[in-house]
Amino acid sequence: MRILEERILSEGQVYPGGVLKVGSFLNQQIDTGLMTEMGKTIAEKFKDDGITKILTIETSGIALAFATAQALGVPMIFGKKHKSNNLDPVLVTTKVFSYTHQQTYDVVVSREYIDSSDVILIVDDFLAKGNAIMGLLEIIETADATCAGAAVAIEKGFQNGGQKIRDMGIKLVSLAIIDSMSDDSLTFVDQGE
Amino acid sequence: MRILEERILSEGQVYPGGVLKVGSFLNQQIDTGLMTEMGKTIAEKFKDDGITKILTIETSGIALAFATAQALGVPMIFGKKHKSNNLDPVLVTTKVFSYTHQQTYDVVVSREYIDSSDVILIVDDFLAKGNAIMGLLEIIETADATCAGAAVAIEKGFQNGGQKIRDMGIKLVSLAIIDSMSDDSLTFVDQGE
Repeated sequence: MRILEERILSEGQVYPGGVLKVGSFLNQQIDTGLMTEMGKTIAEKFKDDGITKILTIETSGIALAFATAQALGVPMIFGKKHKSNNLDPVLVTTKVFSYTHQQTYDVVVSREYIDSSDVILIVDDFLAKGNAIMGLLEIIETADATCAGAAVAIEKGFQNGGQKIRDMGIKLVSLAIIDSMSDDSLTFVDQGE
Repeated sequence: MRILEERILSEGQVYPGGVLKVGSFLNQQIDTGLMTEMGKTIAEKFKDDGITKILTIETSGIALAFATAQALGVPMIFGKKHKSNNLDPVLVTTKVFSYTHQQTYDVVVSREYIDSSDVILIVDDFLAKGNAIMGLLEIIETADATCAGAAVAIEKGFQNGGQKIRDMGIKLVSLAIIDSMSDDSLTFVDQGE
């Protein structure tokens, strides 16, 4: 998605350890116009797949998941990273290791929001090693629902998560795939748009 | 907002300790159509106030903040509840006590996203004792920005947060104000819609 790639080039900041900061428009501060277009672009690629719900993990995937769900006219659900007093006791749980926060956390979804009639699209902001998506796939499987695929804003193509998910036969849409990045250079995989 | 009140009556569940669960449409699972309308309704009430940015706290305020920002055509920012490796070192921090989770946490916003030229609208899902909004007001003040007001989906009118904020002279829009709630009854304050 050209406008996303251009924005990453103009505002993204590369930090040591392969960290790309896009807080000025994608997480923390969100450009709602850009995010709305990103949601529409994802929705267009899954519009014939019978999606009933969008699933993401709190926090930074929520805005894109919302924009995508809005464009498809379906509800969205987010997995919580801890048990809340307000959550139903009947839960689907998985464990996800976050490289950003260097910790493993439980991701929890109330079972009443996903059942075997659901066709789920996973949406998240970043895809690196694929841990978050693998966790969400496990939740969908545990709930006996169907996964129609996954979509992310930015895939770090130089890590193995995207390949792993494609190798599983899962339809994966990445709006921008970073081929390589360093302090002074960032290139994208040409997706032939 | 009648459609929100009707939804609370049909799907909301009251738990001991004054907890109202609306996870089937407002947090955890989000009805994107309803949320979009809620954002438009808030935007309409602040459309002449020169809003430049929407500010919320992760997690459950993000969807409504996004829908409101989308309707006003401005960016949204969310305060994070912990320091992330990806955040800028220059931060505005405040402390907020969460009754839902019974703990005090730091809320952090990168200073580069708020400055003295900003006119900020605070958006959140719930208003009970007002701790989250008070924390966000402190962040806005620390950043020398202007607060145009606050908007929430559901105000617990039987707690003191709403009164406290109105007494400060802050414009407060609550889409639904619960007058009283118990296991078998839930009533709203008539806002004369």
